[in-house]
Amino acid sequence: MTPRKEKIYLDYAAGTPVDPRVFAAMKPYFSQKFGNPGSVHSFGQDAIAAVDRSRESIARALGAEFREVIFTGSATEANNLAIRGAIKKWKDVGNKGIPRIVVSSIEHESVLETARDLEKEGVKVVYVPVDKKGMVNLRILEESLDNRTVLVSMMYANNEIGAIQPIAEIAAIIKKFRGTSIFPLFHTDAVQAFQFLDCDVQKLGVDMMTLSAHKIYGPKGIGALYMRRPIMPVITGGGQEFGMRSGTENVPSIVGFAKAVASAETVREKEAERIMTLNDHFWRRIKNIFPKAERNGSVDGLPNIVNVYFPGYEAQDILTRLDLEGIAASSASACRSRALDASYVITALGYSKERAKASIRFSIGRPTTKREIDTALKVLKKILKK
Amino acid sequence: MTPRKEKIYLDYAAGTPVDPRVFAAMKPYFSQKFGNPGSVHSFGQDAIAAVDRSRESIARALGAEFREVIFTGSATEANNLAIRGAIKKWKDVGNKGIPRIVVSSIEHESVLETARDLEKEGVKVVYVPVDKKGMVNLRILEESLDNRTVLVSMMYANNEIGAIQPIAEIAAIIKKFRGTSIFPLFHTDAVQAFQFLDCDVQKLGVDMMTLSAHKIYGPKGIGALYMRRPIMPVITGGGQEFGMRSGTENVPSIVGFAKAVASAETVREKEAERIMTLNDHFWRRIKNIFPKAERNGSVDGLPNIVNVYFPGYEAQDILTRLDLEGIAASSASACRSRALDASYVITALGYSKERAKASIRFSIGRPTTKREIDTALKVLKKILKK
Repeated sequence: MTPRKEKIYLDYAAGTPVDPRVFAAMKPYFSQKFGNPGSVHSFGQDAIAAVDRSRESIARALGAEFREVIFTGSATEANNLAIRGAIKKWKDVGNKGIPRIVVSSIEHESVLETARDLEKEGVKVVYVPVDKKGMVNLRILEESLDNRTVLVSMMYANNEIGAIQPIAEIAAIIKKFRGTSIFPLFHTDAVQAFQFLDCDVQKLGVDMMTLSAHKIYGPKGIGALYMRRPIMPVITGGGQEFGMRSGTENVPSIVGFAKAVASAETVREKEAERIMTLNDHFWRRIKNIFPKAERNGSVDGLPNIVNVYFPGYEAQDILTRLDLEGIAASSASACRSRALDASYVITALGYSKERAKASIRFSIGRPTTKREIDTALKVLKKILKK
Repeated sequence: MTPRKEKIYLDYAAGTPVDPRVFAAMKPYFSQKFGNPGSVHSFGQDAIAAVDRSRESIARALGAEFREVIFTGSATEANNLAIRGAIKKWKDVGNKGIPRIVVSSIEHESVLETARDLEKEGVKVVYVPVDKKGMVNLRILEESLDNRTVLVSMMYANNEIGAIQPIAEIAAIIKKFRGTSIFPLFHTDAVQAFQFLDCDVQKLGVDMMTLSAHKIYGPKGIGALYMRRPIMPVITGGGQEFGMRSGTENVPSIVGFAKAVASAETVREKEAERIMTLNDHFWRRIKNIFPKAERNGSVDGLPNIVNVYFPGYEAQDILTRLDLEGIAASSASACRSRALDASYVITALGYSKERAKASIRFSIGRPTTKREIDTALKVLKKILKK
C-alpha cells in the first residue's frame, strides 16, 4: 500500500475543524476588538457586548435564561464545575455528613475521574451500570438516590458508542424523588448530543448541562455549563460569569462558540439525516466486507458514530494501517487514546477486554462525503484481507 | 469637547491586542490542523507536536523543563491551581490539621478570592502587609511561616501600581525556613512582570509561576503555570497536561502563547526602556498640568504603569470624560472595574478610600506612541481645568 495524498478524517467525535464562518466571526476579536470585558471604557464595552450577545444566543438555543449560561475553558471544566460546585453548594447550605453522587459507568472521564477524585475526599459515588446497548439501568439509578444525594450526572449521548439516554425520563425520576428539596441536582453532559438532538433544557428537565464548542465546529478551549440555579465556583477571582467562573472572558472563543451553536441548530435535522444515511451505508458495507464484525452500542444511537468490533484483530493494528493510508479513526475517546488502554466504555457494556481492544470508533462529520466513506471502505477491505 | 475619532488605549495592563504575528501563528490550527492532541493518528500528531514545541519554547524562556509548564484556561485558573493544588497536595501526602497559606495584601483577586474561599474550608490565611510603595514587609512574611505553611504566594509585579517584589530574596527566606521539607512552596504571579522583567525560575528560586498570554499580545483564554514539582489537579478528567489539568489542549491558543512569549523576550529590554521614557514624560507632564497630583506606588515599579491620585476629583468622572474623548484608562484592575469599588490595592498601601476613588491607572503598551501620550495629556489638561 502506498500512502494516499488525500486524507480522510473519520474522528469528528474527537474534534472538528473550526467552520470558516465561525472563524470569520471570531477574527475581529483578536487584534481589533481586543478590550477586556471587565473594563468600563468603550474597548471594554465592545467586548462585553459581544460576550452578552453570545450568551443570549446560546441561552436561546437551550431554552434557557441569559444568566443561566456560564462559559468555561472546556467541557471538562464545565463537568468539573457541575460536580465539584454542586458538592460545595451542598456543604455551603449547611449539609453535613457524606454526600453522594450518582453517575453512569460510561460517563466521560471528566465526570468519572472527578467522581474518583472526590471519593478520595470522602464523597460516596454510585456507578450505575448500563446494558449491552449502553442504556442506563433506570431501576438501579432510582434505587441509588438517597437524601444525601447531591447530584446525578448522566451523559445525554455517549462519545464512544453513541448511546442516547432518556434524559427527560431520568429527570422525572429525580424530580419525583427530591420533592421540594433542591437536591439531587441533575446534570447531563450534552457535548456529543448537541449537534443532533434537541437540547431544550425545559423539555429535558435538567438542572445543568455541559456543552463544548470544538465538537460542533467551534474553537477548542471553550465550553459552557447551563445552570438553572447558582452552585459554587471552582475557579475564583474577579467574579466573572456571575461569580461562577472567574478569569477574563475569552471573547473570540465565546463569539465563535455562539456562532457554532447557531450553525449547528440550523443544520441539525438535515445533517442528522444525511449523516445517518452515511452511517447505515458504512456499517452495512463493513458487515459485507467482514461478516464477523459486530456493532458496539445500538443503531438507535447518535447518527455520527459507528463503533465496530473486528474479532481476531487488534484495533491498534488496524488504526495504524488506516493512518498510513491517511484515514483517521480511533479506538476510544481522544482523551485516552495515547494511554492505549482498552476502552472502559466497551467493557462497561459487559464485553471482554479483548473485544474492547478489537473495536474501532469511526465518527462522521459535516465535511464527510459518500466518496470518503467508500474510499475508507476500500482501504478497510484491504487491511482486513491480510 | 467633541468626540475624537482616533482612539487612544492606555489600559494595556488590562489586556493587549493580539500581535498580528501571533495571530498568524495561531491561524492554521483552527480549521486546517484541527486534530485533537490526544488522538494517535496523523491529525492528532500534528496537534500534539505543535503543543510540544510551544511548551518547549515557553519552558526555555523560563529556564524550566518541558514537563514543568502546564497550560490552563487563564492566569486566574493557574493561580487557583497553584493555591488549591498545593493545599490538596499537602493533604494528599498525609498532613493533618489546619494548613496555612501566606499572601500579600495586594495580590490579584484570583489569589485573594481563592484564599478567602479556602478560609471558609478552614484554611488559615495570613495577609502580609505592604508599605506605601507597595513593598511586602519581609519581616512579617518571615514571621508568618510555620510548619503548617503550605504555600507563599507573592506577585512579582503588581497590576495596579506596578510595585516589584524582591522575589529571589523572598525565595531565599522560604528556602531557609523549609530546610529539607517540600513545604512551604513558593508561588509568584508573574502575569504583569513577564514583559519587562527576567522571569528565569532558577534565578528567582520560585516553585511555581503564573503567566498569561493576553497581557503580552497573545490571545485571551490561555494561561500557564510553571511547576517545579507536581502538585494536585483542580480540573480532572482525561489526564492532559501530565495529569495536572485535564481538558482538550487549546492548540491555537497554546501556539499563540508561545509566539507571544518569544516576541516579548525579543523586545523585552528595548521596550522596557522605550516605555519607561514615555512613562517619565507622561508623569512629569501630569505633575506640570496638575501639581497636586501624586503618584501611587513607586517610580521603581513596572515601566508601563502610571497610577495617579488626582486630589479633589472622582476617578469615575475623569475616566468617563476620557472615554468620551476616545481615551481608555482604568481605576482598578479590569476584573473589578464594573463593580466600581475603590481599589483595595491603593487602600492596602495605607491610603484613604477617598484617595483610592480619586486614582487612575494609565498603562502604556507596545503600540503606544509619544504622540498618543501627548494627545492624552492635552485632553487630561482640559478635563482637570473644569
